[in-house]
Amino acid sequence: MSQSVARSRTSHESSRNSSLPLEAIEAAYDRIEAERDRNCWIYLRPRAEALEACRKLLARARTGENLPLLGILFGVKDNIDVEGMPTSAACPAFSYTPWHSAHSVERLTAAGAICLGKTNLDQFATGLCGARSPYGSCASVADVRYVAGGSSSGSAVAVAAGHVAFALGTDTGGSGRIPAGFNNIVGIKPTVGLVSSRGLVPNCPTIDCVSVFCNTVSDGEAILDIIEGFDFEDPYSRVPRALSFASGAAPSFRFGRLAPADLECFGMPECGELYERACARFAQIGGTAIEVDFAPFRQAGELMFSGPWVAERHAAIASLLDIDSGALLDVTRTVLGSAAGYSAIDTFGAIHRLHRLRRDAEAIFAGIDALVVPTAPRPFTLEEMHRDPITLNNRLGYYSYFANLLDLCGVAVPNATLPNGMPMGVTLLAPAWHDRALIGLARRFEAGADGAAFESKPGG
Amino acid sequence: MSQSVARSRTSHESSRNSSLPLEAIEAAYDRIEAERDRNCWIYLRPRAEALEACRKLLARARTGENLPLLGILFGVKDNIDVEGMPTSAACPAFSYTPWHSAHSVERLTAAGAICLGKTNLDQFATGLCGARSPYGSCASVADVRYVAGGSSSGSAVAVAAGHVAFALGTDTGGSGRIPAGFNNIVGIKPTVGLVSSRGLVPNCPTIDCVSVFCNTVSDGEAILDIIEGFDFEDPYSRVPRALSFASGAAPSFRFGRLAPADLECFGMPECGELYERACARFAQIGGTAIEVDFAPFRQAGELMFSGPWVAERHAAIASLLDIDSGALLDVTRTVLGSAAGYSAIDTFGAIHRLHRLRRDAEAIFAGIDALVVPTAPRPFTLEEMHRDPITLNNRLGYYSYFANLLDLCGVAVPNATLPNGMPMGVTLLAPAWHDRALIGLARRFEAGADGAAFESKPGG
Repeated sequence: MSQSVARSRTSHESSRNSSLPLEAIEAAYDRIEAERDRNCWIYLRPRAEALEACRKLLARARTGENLPLLGILFGVKDNIDVEGMPTSAACPAFSYTPWHSAHSVERLTAAGAICLGKTNLDQFATGLCGARSPYGSCASVADVRYVAGGSSSGSAVAVAAGHVAFALGTDTGGSGRIPAGFNNIVGIKPTVGLVSSRGLVPNCPTIDCVSVFCNTVSDGEAILDIIEGFDFEDPYSRVPRALSFASGAAPSFRFGRLAPADLECFGMPECGELYERACARFAQIGGTAIEVDFAPFRQAGELMFSGPWVAERHAAIASLLDIDSGALLDVTRTVLGSAAGYSAIDTFGAIHRLHRLRRDAEAIFAGIDALVVPTAPRPFTLEEMHRDPITLNNRLGYYSYFANLLDLCGVAVPNATLPNGMPMGVTLLAPAWHDRALIGLARRFEAGADGAAFESKPGG
Repeated sequence: MSQSVARSRTSHESSRNSSLPLEAIEAAYDRIEAERDRNCWIYLRPRAEALEACRKLLARARTGENLPLLGILFGVKDNIDVEGMPTSAACPAFSYTPWHSAHSVERLTAAGAICLGKTNLDQFATGLCGARSPYGSCASVADVRYVAGGSSSGSAVAVAAGHVAFALGTDTGGSGRIPAGFNNIVGIKPTVGLVSSRGLVPNCPTIDCVSVFCNTVSDGEAILDIIEGFDFEDPYSRVPRALSFASGAAPSFRFGRLAPADLECFGMPECGELYERACARFAQIGGTAIEVDFAPFRQAGELMFSGPWVAERHAAIASLLDIDSGALLDVTRTVLGSAAGYSAIDTFGAIHRLHRLRRDAEAIFAGIDALVVPTAPRPFTLEEMHRDPITLNNRLGYYSYFANLLDLCGVAVPNATLPNGMPMGVTLLAPAWHDRALIGLARRFEAGADGAAFESKPGG
């Protein structure tokens, strides 16, 4: 039985006088212990400690304290600090135990949520597959042959497998979306700077953000309500721009879609069919499809995986760790090593190019409420991924790499399953600060589903 | 007799039926021709053409058309396009004649202003001295031995010498402020992105802006009213952030000032005394001085002149011109050549550092309405500058380099003259989008002057 975050906020009257939250903890640990082979946890908080924390919260709630997330269980990607738990970023040599939790984690625990531990990830969040960790690879909850997606692989699997009600991830080029898609759950990737990134292991600080994995769009909104907000202490936090928009509530809306000729499925055309079904569902719930030019998005994506931003990763990580020391996985070292090939002149040239691409994207968004893309072009098996780890990883990011560079926000939602049983999601994207509008549209898409795919969700 | 832009806007009723604008043109050309040795013009529009343009404007005004700048004469720095006039950026080999004027120039001519030509500058706006041009060096109007300041040297001199009522410049690291200070005029350096940079020869596009040189703060405000505004076609134009502030009208205000120990005059302590006099004048007009920590500003300035942003210049200029072709001055080539020493990793490291410094500056500005700094630390003679062109140029930028990197706006105003007769200015600085608040404070500072320094202004 999964906890509902959104429901908890309105119904915790009952919880505070009951032992339900304690039972939920016991059940979660039982399940986690029975499913160690999912490799989704790097560090698990001792059960007794979680139970004790919960008892204290229940006592506080009984005194009348407002704890909107009372007893809701969550996991935290292991590149986000949780006080007293080691942060490894999936690199044991890097591990340290922080004295303070990340700003987002602090907010959640203050609201009564209980962190059960730290989840697996592609090392230093450098990857989109979930197969780049010394703590083992994560497979999709739908099919153990397929990758879970990454880099927030453990967070997505922990939610999809019912270990926790929600989990925090991070997203730089798709890490908060891809694993949501391959595990049939929701991934909220906020506008960069909407949620404080204080307490994150830096990856590409100018485009890193905290993301949320959860079972429903409403759960995601409830979490975002709690963790969002300007944080002066985080140099990358931004004051939101005031917007006047329909927040997805207008009965009719316009959504951007790819032209059939632009649909890239890397040899698995059935993925394209699922995308068409998603577009049909958006039309059913009041959307008018507008074919948009994908070129600026594709070009911005290319800047991400074959441009100088790899040097931002290197600049951030090399200041924390000697990347030539042997502490890194070969694939991480290879990716970071390519940073040396870019000059400052290349970098500014790419930044100038990106400014122009942002304008191209703004022109497209002037005519649509959201852009709908496949969350990932296709799934790959773990075996395929290990055989060709860099090329296939880049392919996974075809529909996600560009978002943060173009200053977009996104919501990844479940769509449908392939004939082989693998779930595939779609992602709604819009310019910065339109997070609530996307959440509104995503909720309508979710409500418009026939439900069959959801009934069969593992751990649901 | 100088034209007043601000006055023209309310009093052009008389102009449209008179020959005054034509007489002003004749007088301006007479003066310009008599003062060719100031080297402030690279290209001068033929006199007959200017007169003909003016006659047409007068005819339009007589039909009732609203031309708020009817017959006001202006100059344009030669890195900003004016339709039909060559743009050289002070590099003859680069010269081209554009088909369209820059967005700001278009706005001004649409308002009835008349461009007399293109003004001299440090080659490719790379310099702060006015002594880096194949079209000759510009000296201060106050003393021919001293540099005019740059890179917008010709624009400042043309205004100070009374050739035109105002002139456009550009500002990347001080080019819109330094020459205002050394020529005893006003320099408005707007928030980056407030005025379209479409039609500029790029220098550092992410921090370039159009600036205004004029005789009074009110003139500057009148020009800014006309040229400001979001321009979708310029990738660096920004939608202004809505602000609620006192626009400099509150009777009392707080201004940041340097601690005496932080005052850097590079061996000319009398410059520090003038700064103290400016602070005293700010106190007289209702300001409370707050000593602030100059370290974040100094450190951001160091990033500008000894950090990777030189590679942004290189990236922008190298795409226009083969910088090894011999077309550049030695000093420009030397400066741009240093770009190759920076990697992409250095660049992102510096960008991350800058994000932290921006926060430090924001914390300081939370306690003050404006920061007051000397416009330049001290004047140098042309002879000194030619002897040590790079070191002394960097010294000129000590109080200006950091502004655009820290996303500040600024207004440079005349302050007082040194015993040797050289005028020295002060600059008011505030975070982005506080342009009007600064203008309000600068106008009060200007009004609080005893007037002696202004009476003796050449060409005034």
